Amino acid sequence: MNNAPGRRVCGTPGLPRTPCLRSLRVPMPYEFILSHRAEFSETDMAGIVHFANFYRMMENAEHAFFRSLGFSIHAHDGSATVGWPRVNAACEFFKPLRFEEVVDIQLLVAEVRARSIRYAFRFWKSEDGERTEIARGSVTTVCTTVNRMTGKLGAVEIPAAIRAAIAPAPAEMLAALSPK
Amino acid sequence: MNNAPGRRVCGTPGLPRTPCLRSLRVPMPYEFILSHRAEFSETDMAGIVHFANFYRMMENAEHAFFRSLGFSIHAHDGSATVGWPRVNAACEFFKPLRFEEVVDIQLLVAEVRARSIRYAFRFWKSEDGERTEIARGSVTTVCTTVNRMTGKLGAVEIPAAIRAAIAPAPAEMLAALSPK
Amino acid sequence: MNNAPGRRVCGTPGLPRTPCLRSLRVPMPYEFILSHRAEFSETDMAGIVHFANFYRMMENAEHAFFRSLGFSIHAHDGSATVGWPRVNAACEFFKPLRFEEVVDIQLLVAEVRARSIRYAFRFWKSEDGERTEIARGSVTTVCTTVNRMTGKLGAVEIPAAIRAAIAPAPAEMLAALSPK
Amino acid sequence: MNNAPGRRVCGTPGLPRTPCLRSLRVPMPYEFILSHRAEFSETDMAGIVHFANFYRMMENAEHAFFRSLGFSIHAHDGSATVGWPRVNAACEFFKPLRFEEVVDIQLLVAEVRARSIRYAFRFWKSEDGERTEIARGSVTTVCTTVNRMTGKLGAVEIPAAIRAAIAPAPAEMLAALSPK
Repeated sequence: MNNAPGRRVCGTPGLPRTPCLRSLRVPMPYEFILSHRAEFSETDMAGIVHFANFYRMMENAEHAFFRSLGFSIHAHDGSATVGWPRVNAACEFFKPLRFEEVVDIQLLVAEVRARSIRYAFRFWKSEDGERTEIARGSVTTVCTTVNRMTGKLGAVEIPAAIRAAIAPAPAEMLAALSPK
Repeated sequence: MNNAPGRRVCGTPGLPRTPCLRSLRVPMPYEFILSHRAEFSETDMAGIVHFANFYRMMENAEHAFFRSLGFSIHAHDGSATVGWPRVNAACEFFKPLRFEEVVDIQLLVAEVRARSIRYAFRFWKSEDGERTEIARGSVTTVCTTVNRMTGKLGAVEIPAAIRAAIAPAPAEMLAALSPK
Repeated sequence: MNNAPGRRVCGTPGLPRTPCLRSLRVPMPYEFILSHRAEFSETDMAGIVHFANFYRMMENAEHAFFRSLGFSIHAHDGSATVGWPRVNAACEFFKPLRFEEVVDIQLLVAEVRARSIRYAFRFWKSEDGERTEIARGSVTTVCTTVNRMTGKLGAVEIPAAIRAAIAPAPAEMLAALSPK
Repeated sequence: MNNAPGRRVCGTPGLPRTPCLRSLRVPMPYEFILSHRAEFSETDMAGIVHFANFYRMMENAEHAFFRSLGFSIHAHDGSATVGWPRVNAACEFFKPLRFEEVVDIQLLVAEVRARSIRYAFRFWKSEDGERTEIARGSVTTVCTTVNRMTGKLGAVEIPAAIRAAIAPAPAEMLAALSPK
């Protein structure tokens, strides 16, 4: 999956044995894969990665997707800061993720509206030589300006440059994401 | 709301001015309120509490609810540990929470099944003298044993003592929680 | 220790059985105690609270100390924000802290300089009916303004009102803190 | 610095523009460099990476160093788990780290004793075309077994295979680390 054409794969910290796959082509406007090796501090006393970290991972994949397109998720525009706060985020958990295991966080653009983007996420790990989906999530973010003097937030239209660079994934890719 | 009969309210760190409300009656089997003052380390560069912390807060309310009933969320039973991993967790965000603001995390038992419990959560803060709902979430957890030697997880029936102590909230309280 | 005159003790989330001790007198200018019940998400796969959380706990005690004096650690002053970034922080760990255990974080003002404050911290828990020191730390913070437009940080003199409200702890209290 | 012979450099998530440097030679027994791109969730409302994350970063570099040598920091040995809890950790902060900046965490083995290892850490970022040291820390860890049934911790001698694979850094490298 990682070496499919046009899919972006980022490096993974502490992964000396796995080759660092990087796309040689332009980024696709609807998909991105971020790899992450589970950290000790992400585990809990049940011996598995604490579930709250999956929301951070989805956000990190979203931000890396933005960087791959040449944007930052947190940009300054005069006296305002453009950001993307979440309006909702959900995750289903199928299998545990353990310390030092590598998880591939697959981002798909599910919907682009005037002021918001909805992403779908699938988490994959390799187990017994097979690719296993361990979690599945979704996040909706709203394009927002934060006034740096007052701290007030307000939704705004997505900048044209970003809209031009992002498109929803093909319907058949999203169809696979109906509740498991 | 906090001083309604039978509702449990826990103390809040660093809250010298607010009286520490505690129920004088037995805990209700379907509701619990945990107060939390937003920490500096929970904020992000947008100046608001990072959304991933809301999932930790829901979990903390769930664990405090269990403690209020005399149970621990993580108990040892011979060579196994009984735990409650999440199978899904979702949250909608209506308004930001800021540093040092106090949020009341209201837990409601939404559904009790043979091996799982579904909770609904509402987050409240006081703003301009009014009680405002800033977020709303849900979490489904499955009663599970973790073999301490092998680390394997397996779903089990909820122990009778816990089932006897918990009941779903009245339908009208849950009806208020349909999507906003 | 908690009920010594003049020492501030904050509430603890999810602590229904322990009385909520609060000082009836004015805050002391050099000491503060914040209680905290270890959260599930703070544990790691070794079954104990992950060490990085001790730095957050020291910070939370510092912020609660400031609040007890009527100040906020993060205040707005015109177009600048006054903050207290850390210039160093250290902690020694003697014994583990486990899920649901209550730790008392004792803050002592160790030194007040023109632009910085050094705090000493001792972490206490009850074990087998005895009060046990489980960790000991120190933090030096510098009074700083952050320009909200540029994000630049710069050290400034501690405001007079804060200097007037804080004093170093008595030498004998600090002497007890020489390396264990 | 990254391309010096024998120094290990790991990949960085979301770093499409920087080449992924990897050592072609065997790992050095006393040094390791882990790169990390600052995440949004690591920032705080002051707009910079929250200091508690630097302790996680030191730990992540230590764990990646162990992996580079073929070891895991958390290994099972019969009914016990061998781990490396911290006995102390300190960090000095010189300059802020901001969202999306890349930091190189340089680990040096400072001292190897019968049951413990002391590491020194230097944090580097590129600023205005120059390599700048933004923080400096140290961590002492003790080789420990955790009984998986009782949870009890006990210090043990470092396994021979690990002792054989690690050596202190040359004195001149460590001399550069005297307090700044």
